[in-house]
Amino acid sequence: MSTIPKSVKLGNHVAIEQDVMIGENVVIGHHTTILRGTEIGDNVTIGCNCVLGIEPSVNERMRKTFKANNGLVIQCGTRIGHLVSIYSGTSIGENVFIGDHAGIRENVSIGAESVIGRAAIVELNTTIGKSCTVQTNAYITGDTTLEDRVFIGPCVSMSNDKYMGAKPYSLKGPYIKTGAKIGNNASLLPGITIGVNTVIGAGAVVTRNMEDGIVAAGVPARKIPS
Amino acid sequence: MSTIPKSVKLGNHVAIEQDVMIGENVVIGHHTTILRGTEIGDNVTIGCNCVLGIEPSVNERMRKTFKANNGLVIQCGTRIGHLVSIYSGTSIGENVFIGDHAGIRENVSIGAESVIGRAAIVELNTTIGKSCTVQTNAYITGDTTLEDRVFIGPCVSMSNDKYMGAKPYSLKGPYIKTGAKIGNNASLLPGITIGVNTVIGAGAVVTRNMEDGIVAAGVPARKIPS
Amino acid sequence: MSTIPKSVKLGNHVAIEQDVMIGENVVIGHHTTILRGTEIGDNVTIGCNCVLGIEPSVNERMRKTFKANNGLVIQCGTRIGHLVSIYSGTSIGENVFIGDHAGIRENVSIGAESVIGRAAIVELNTTIGKSCTVQTNAYITGDTTLEDRVFIGPCVSMSNDKYMGAKPYSLKGPYIKTGAKIGNNASLLPGITIGVNTVIGAGAVVTRNMEDGIVAAGVPARKIPS
Repeated sequence: MSTIPKSVKLGNHVAIEQDVMIGENVVIGHHTTILRGTEIGDNVTIGCNCVLGIEPSVNERMRKTFKANNGLVIQCGTRIGHLVSIYSGTSIGENVFIGDHAGIRENVSIGAESVIGRAAIVELNTTIGKSCTVQTNAYITGDTTLEDRVFIGPCVSMSNDKYMGAKPYSLKGPYIKTGAKIGNNASLLPGITIGVNTVIGAGAVVTRNMEDGIVAAGVPARKIPS
Repeated sequence: MSTIPKSVKLGNHVAIEQDVMIGENVVIGHHTTILRGTEIGDNVTIGCNCVLGIEPSVNERMRKTFKANNGLVIQCGTRIGHLVSIYSGTSIGENVFIGDHAGIRENVSIGAESVIGRAAIVELNTTIGKSCTVQTNAYITGDTTLEDRVFIGPCVSMSNDKYMGAKPYSLKGPYIKTGAKIGNNASLLPGITIGVNTVIGAGAVVTRNMEDGIVAAGVPARKIPS
Repeated sequence: MSTIPKSVKLGNHVAIEQDVMIGENVVIGHHTTILRGTEIGDNVTIGCNCVLGIEPSVNERMRKTFKANNGLVIQCGTRIGHLVSIYSGTSIGENVFIGDHAGIRENVSIGAESVIGRAAIVELNTTIGKSCTVQTNAYITGDTTLEDRVFIGPCVSMSNDKYMGAKPYSLKGPYIKTGAKIGNNASLLPGITIGVNTVIGAGAVVTRNMEDGIVAAGVPARKIPS
């Protein structure tokens, strides 16, 4: 059974499964589902119509994913919007903000104070550092790393599959170093590295590694002389 | 208490908070949440699993937003799809259509007869005129103006932050004049103006103001001689 | 009345309307809505907070859509994620996978074993063949055909309206032939054909037909000599 402290404010028609741990002063909106094994820290706020703690599932043509040993963990003070989905095996740090309609897969780690925008999607096996901003509609592919204080603009797109399913391939998303900033609707190719504090222009298509501290833009993206 | 006229058709498991005003012949789908202070005009149709009238909320790294004095107002004859989120302090005109999975923030005004597509996102402090079309998956950033009869193609992206969070900056989205048309997946930079009846090609990256009545395309977008 | 076999596992607060047919061993998550006329095959799994079997609806400025004669049909073994919307008059084949937050319109056909990614949108009158992959956030416009084994990368954008609403026009989406692969965030213009096994690079803007068996990239997309 799940025990719910008296300080918790539950909406109407909430579904809470077994083995859920809920901290003090948590708020859970109407029609939200908390699936088994989820741990929610103190002072967490969760909106309406969310689905939290989802067990991974695939069809036969998709990559097998691990069976999460742990449930979803949401640390203190984090705010989750409305109509959000988050999988089990994922850990969300303290004071994170997750916007409405966002979707976060299994085996993801999100550092303290980071912001995941409205309708942003974070795929599996991805690490997001502290104080990152992932803006609205951005797509963080699987097997990606964002170090700390990275800024991902709205509608940024990434890929982790060089052969688009045609060959067996070890999937690898981008590796984006501390303080880098990616402009809106830029496209990042599989496995590239973006250097420390580097800025990528809006609409750029980044096909190669970008060194530290530069500005790059265009299709394909090239360094802009400073 | 909220009073609900007898002519209203309520789905199952609907959650309606206090101080909600609902007009005649309104239809509200299953599992939808109407939060306090929302005003719904006559003949409005709302789908299932929506969350309407959301109070703004931020974390410490995000821009402070105003506390809406008014609730969400939805005028007569408007149709709202399924799995939609809309904030308080926003006003939706008559006979507007809002597609499934769309998200609309606080302090937004949408003129009569406009269409907001499926999964489109409209950020805060934005004004959309009459008879506009915002297509599927388009992203209308904060502090943006669309005059009347503007067409925003599918997956169009906008930004309102020139320094991507690096400097304090007065945020400013695009200003798009009457009858302008933006092709699918185009990227618009902060603060640019698109002229009356101007057409921007699919995939263009618009980095500068575009005068009235031209066609522009490419990366960066340039005027195409007529 | 809808009859529900004893082998079906129903979540809490599920809404099932009249004239719904549900097969053996079906699982339906919490807060999901199944609208009238829907047929669900054996061993189908449906997540939480979904809305299935939606009747089409428009406002006066939108294209009239047909009144579906049939309900939504979901064949055996298909898995549907969470927070998904699917319309009536659509047919989903066997062992299909539909990701969370996806939206699928009326009069769509999806072949066996295909994968529709998280938050992907499939518009009306579209045919998707067998064993296709439509990745996360991709936008499949209306009146589009994907033959078999097509790969649509993340955030790919399409359009079906050459005049962006300015002229009456017979809407036509892309026609993508067997085995073609479209890179992430590419933009496809109305009515173009992509040839058999052709590969389009990430971020490309495809403005013309592409022949069979080539690789093309850039803005506008051009054939890359092999």
